[in-house]
Amino acid sequence: MFEIIRRDGLARIGKFATRAGVLETPALLPVVNPKILTVTPRELYEEFGFRALITNSYIIRSNDDIKQRAENEGLHSLLDFPGIIMTDSGTFQSHMYGEVEVSNQDIVNFQKRIGSDIGTVLDIFTEPFWTEEETAASISVTLERTKEAASMKDDMMIAGVVQGSVYPHLREMCAHRMRDMDVNVHPIGGVVPLMEQYRYEELVDVIIASKKGLSPDRPVHLFGAGHPMVLSLAVLLGCDMFDSASYAKFARDDRMMFIDGTYRLEDMLSLDCKCPACGSHTLETLRKLPDKERTRTIARHNLYEITKELSIIKRYILEGRLWELVEQRCRAHPALLGALRKLSEHGEFLERYEPLSRDGAMFYTGPETYSRPVFRRYLERVSERYVPRTKSMESFTDNGGCGKPYLREYHKEFVWARREGRTPVVMSPFGPVPEELDEIYPIAQSLFPQIADMETEKRIDPSDNPLNFETVTVTAIRGSHEDAEPIDTTEGALVDKAKAVARYQFGIAAANTLMSGKIELVVSRNTGKIRNVISDGEHVLSMRAGDGFYTLRPEGAARIIKNVPAPHMRVTVSDDAVPFVSEGKNVFCAFVTGCDDNIRPMEEVLVVDGNDRLAAVGRAVMVRDEMLSFRKGVAVKVRDGVGKS
Amino acid sequence: MFEIIRRDGLARIGKFATRAGVLETPALLPVVNPKILTVTPRELYEEFGFRALITNSYIIRSNDDIKQRAENEGLHSLLDFPGIIMTDSGTFQSHMYGEVEVSNQDIVNFQKRIGSDIGTVLDIFTEPFWTEEETAASISVTLERTKEAASMKDDMMIAGVVQGSVYPHLREMCAHRMRDMDVNVHPIGGVVPLMEQYRYEELVDVIIASKKGLSPDRPVHLFGAGHPMVLSLAVLLGCDMFDSASYAKFARDDRMMFIDGTYRLEDMLSLDCKCPACGSHTLETLRKLPDKERTRTIARHNLYEITKELSIIKRYILEGRLWELVEQRCRAHPALLGALRKLSEHGEFLERYEPLSRDGAMFYTGPETYSRPVFRRYLERVSERYVPRTKSMESFTDNGGCGKPYLREYHKEFVWARREGRTPVVMSPFGPVPEELDEIYPIAQSLFPQIADMETEKRIDPSDNPLNFETVTVTAIRGSHEDAEPIDTTEGALVDKAKAVARYQFGIAAANTLMSGKIELVVSRNTGKIRNVISDGEHVLSMRAGDGFYTLRPEGAARIIKNVPAPHMRVTVSDDAVPFVSEGKNVFCAFVTGCDDNIRPMEEVLVVDGNDRLAAVGRAVMVRDEMLSFRKGVAVKVRDGVGKS
Repeated sequence: MFEIIRRDGLARIGKFATRAGVLETPALLPVVNPKILTVTPRELYEEFGFRALITNSYIIRSNDDIKQRAENEGLHSLLDFPGIIMTDSGTFQSHMYGEVEVSNQDIVNFQKRIGSDIGTVLDIFTEPFWTEEETAASISVTLERTKEAASMKDDMMIAGVVQGSVYPHLREMCAHRMRDMDVNVHPIGGVVPLMEQYRYEELVDVIIASKKGLSPDRPVHLFGAGHPMVLSLAVLLGCDMFDSASYAKFARDDRMMFIDGTYRLEDMLSLDCKCPACGSHTLETLRKLPDKERTRTIARHNLYEITKELSIIKRYILEGRLWELVEQRCRAHPALLGALRKLSEHGEFLERYEPLSRDGAMFYTGPETYSRPVFRRYLERVSERYVPRTKSMESFTDNGGCGKPYLREYHKEFVWARREGRTPVVMSPFGPVPEELDEIYPIAQSLFPQIADMETEKRIDPSDNPLNFETVTVTAIRGSHEDAEPIDTTEGALVDKAKAVARYQFGIAAANTLMSGKIELVVSRNTGKIRNVISDGEHVLSMRAGDGFYTLRPEGAARIIKNVPAPHMRVTVSDDAVPFVSEGKNVFCAFVTGCDDNIRPMEEVLVVDGNDRLAAVGRAVMVRDEMLSFRKGVAVKVRDGVGKS
Repeated sequence: MFEIIRRDGLARIGKFATRAGVLETPALLPVVNPKILTVTPRELYEEFGFRALITNSYIIRSNDDIKQRAENEGLHSLLDFPGIIMTDSGTFQSHMYGEVEVSNQDIVNFQKRIGSDIGTVLDIFTEPFWTEEETAASISVTLERTKEAASMKDDMMIAGVVQGSVYPHLREMCAHRMRDMDVNVHPIGGVVPLMEQYRYEELVDVIIASKKGLSPDRPVHLFGAGHPMVLSLAVLLGCDMFDSASYAKFARDDRMMFIDGTYRLEDMLSLDCKCPACGSHTLETLRKLPDKERTRTIARHNLYEITKELSIIKRYILEGRLWELVEQRCRAHPALLGALRKLSEHGEFLERYEPLSRDGAMFYTGPETYSRPVFRRYLERVSERYVPRTKSMESFTDNGGCGKPYLREYHKEFVWARREGRTPVVMSPFGPVPEELDEIYPIAQSLFPQIADMETEKRIDPSDNPLNFETVTVTAIRGSHEDAEPIDTTEGALVDKAKAVARYQFGIAAANTLMSGKIELVVSRNTGKIRNVISDGEHVLSMRAGDGFYTLRPEGAARIIKNVPAPHMRVTVSDDAVPFVSEGKNVFCAFVTGCDDNIRPMEEVLVVDGNDRLAAVGRAVMVRDEMLSFRKGVAVKVRDGVGKS
């Protein structure tokens, strides 16, 4: 049903297949009130390109005339919408105006009857001010109803709403309990009050907790989130779908949505929008439009602002730079900035989805950038996997403004330190970077401002060094070197680099087997960089110039199979997939039966059969949980199939 | 010639009157090469609304055909442009391709002859890599030539270019030496290499140094700055004019300008622009356009992106929020972030132009926000002008997430501290805030994220308190209060607040005379806030609810005249202006003969005649240097004229 096309951490561009067509995500579903069509569904489809909308089955059911039409001709004809129609259940109405005179069964059946493509359970809305007990009790009801709805859905899809107020463990529990239920989409509900009160930090906790619990193969819908200001953050956290009633509601109040906030037409001091709705309007001409036309113009503006932001978000996902977009957007309000800072508390979860490397340079945009899992990743790996070559180190500093790779900036000093038997280590914003790792992503591919902030100063403090040097910090006296001519031991240094990168990327045991015996390096004549690693005559690894990491050759993979126990670096596929994979075809999720939990997106993996026999070598596109739950999509991009032995 | 309409610190919306029409600034002048018209000047005027363009007189002069047409019909007819035409002189050509075969006299005369509205001196381009000596020597030539050009300009305006490479003192000297010359616009030259090399920190130093030297009444043109990414920062530093050849040059290379950078069409992964040029183009349809049409489409896109950003900049100036826009924009590249951080080194200069208060809340967007002069202003004033009421203080903390005003958040605790004879002081991101100042701008009107960064943690450290309490930091044990019922001494506290705000706003001496004798307060029945201050029966001050500051009443002003020596808070006007001002008319710059150098925009001022007799009370719109140099525009908005005595 749902398939990932491209990803950037938890963020994903997906395809959600429904009986009424395929929805590309991230997607926003405009809320359509059948009684007031500010913009017609047909226009939403044709002019704006919306492939899905959401409408409220409870409201339809409450209006005899519309109800009858919906039952007779169906929702698609009633609304004149050729795309996907999702319906809400009346949960919110029930919550706001007391018990509704409809049961879960009734409303699910009604949604089926009127031809909704995605119906919603009559769940219980949990308010942020509810106690834990109240919340837990209401979740039980929601879960019962979800089970019931799933059992009676037939060919309608069902949206199972994750509730749990502001209690992360209840959100996660609720989400987790829905894993076994046959539902298709997971709205995260009860979050509108958080957004209205600018409680974005709690919103972050709620989304992350829900994501932890949910099965990754179903789209996640952030219920009621429709302001362009918040979309990029929500997508970064793995939300795929949104809806907006605000585009029309705000328009009726003369409020225009912009990426940096909402503005009342009467308070605005100028109009700087050139969207097709605003066109050549000035503030004056817009204000003077007759009521109905003005509302319609503002609603269309709001929709254009939303679609533009979604389109920008997709671009940043494609570029692997969504964190940077979010870090820009979160400056629009201090509460959003707080939310961004909150992400640092979820580093462990975020790191699971963080790719090994990205295209292009990493831009530092302020201390919030340290929330990115790439920092945690580096520190963890270098602490666990770096093996010092020498007993002592010599420390250098990069406060952000240093040239890269460091060897180019500090060439003479590095050579000297090596000669003296010390390892050059650069105290950088990422943590300590031993000379050998100065070309891997993101060390060499990052840009910082020349003027450091306090968080950066703290990170480059040499007293805070987790590496296992016996004697820490032998800072050489600069200047004493200047006359002397150190001997460049480049060749030895390159072998050390080859080993250190292998350990960082594959772990110590795998690196040891890859680098055993006699090591020969093929080095680029132009750049002096390592290209290939030959171990005892076998070409085991090739190094990529872009991110400084290796691609694993089948000969290298065979050694890991032999010497490093499973499941390290393994993706296991079912027997029927082996012949295809062995011929170099990609591994599809449906055929994955097991996976090393430590594999991250973009990492080199060994594709093996049930007996740990090598079938192929490739790059993971997903992490374990995803490979095992998705039914569609590529799990591993195979580079080399290893023909049957 | 030049007039300020609205301002936000150094940034200004201005009107620059030329013989060919009025140019509203900030403005960008598209560079038009008469040999290649990617977009015609007529289109620039009519479709995009550009009221001025720039073209190169040296190139025109070098092409016999075009030269003859320019001399015969004039530039406006040659280019078919009904707006203002500025010409460049060949400086850049001379710099790039060696000495040009034209003298300063020749090229100035030629510019006059072809009907340029604003001609440019043949100055010497100073490269960033030049030594101080080379730079200084070349500035002498530039200054000589500028003097010569000014003397021969007749009714053409002259642009006098500020040079000086990366040496701030040379930039300032060069700028200062031009104060006495009869030139009309000041381009800051030689900055293109800095921008091309992303040396934005140095660009900041260069602009500030030039602004310090220049007379404030002439528009400042940042030569060669045309990327939308950099415009908001340059406007924030007081640049009024820009030019862009890039819109067309980039287009010929298939490069599209966006607010977050420049993208090559071939590298782009999606097109998310809905500007009138991109319209309904997708990446595919745009790529497939025939060369000429594609170039034209991209050039038009680039122009729309520029005009949109200028329009957004104007909106933020009108809203008094330009710092916030710049802080968003500078996340697009770490080098821009570095530039933003560099501003903290120019706090003293920036503070001179910082208004007393702004409309709306102040948003914190990260540690760079501490570069804003509003922080320096508060710390300076509170250190100099706050007089502790008690010997000891009790410290509270606001790490950003505290409710405001503080009295509401900490009501019981404050009352208790007062009763115990201690002054409650909140250690806030602005520095220590004594209870009495908790409602003034920006203390009560600011929003910070709930999670503090290290810079904020440092600022709220109670050991770093510049206030003059004898015994510093008596931190009460919370909880011991909870049972007891403290006595609310609100009335006394309000009088203390009335006095403390007066000292902060007007200085200690003026506050003492305003608050002498018996003090009565008129307090709002709804909010409990101070409205009017009556001293010995005279209504001397009214307090504004919005920013917590006073408006000064004529009775109060009379006391300051009597008891606080000039020039404190005075703006002196010439005798012929006194009758008008006394009747309540605004003070225009042309009539200002003197001004207290400590007056900041939006501050209460006394308008006096040459004998220090009060003529009116009002709010300053400008600072001293501006009042004395501008020939047009309002210097003081008069609230109460004081009829002749």
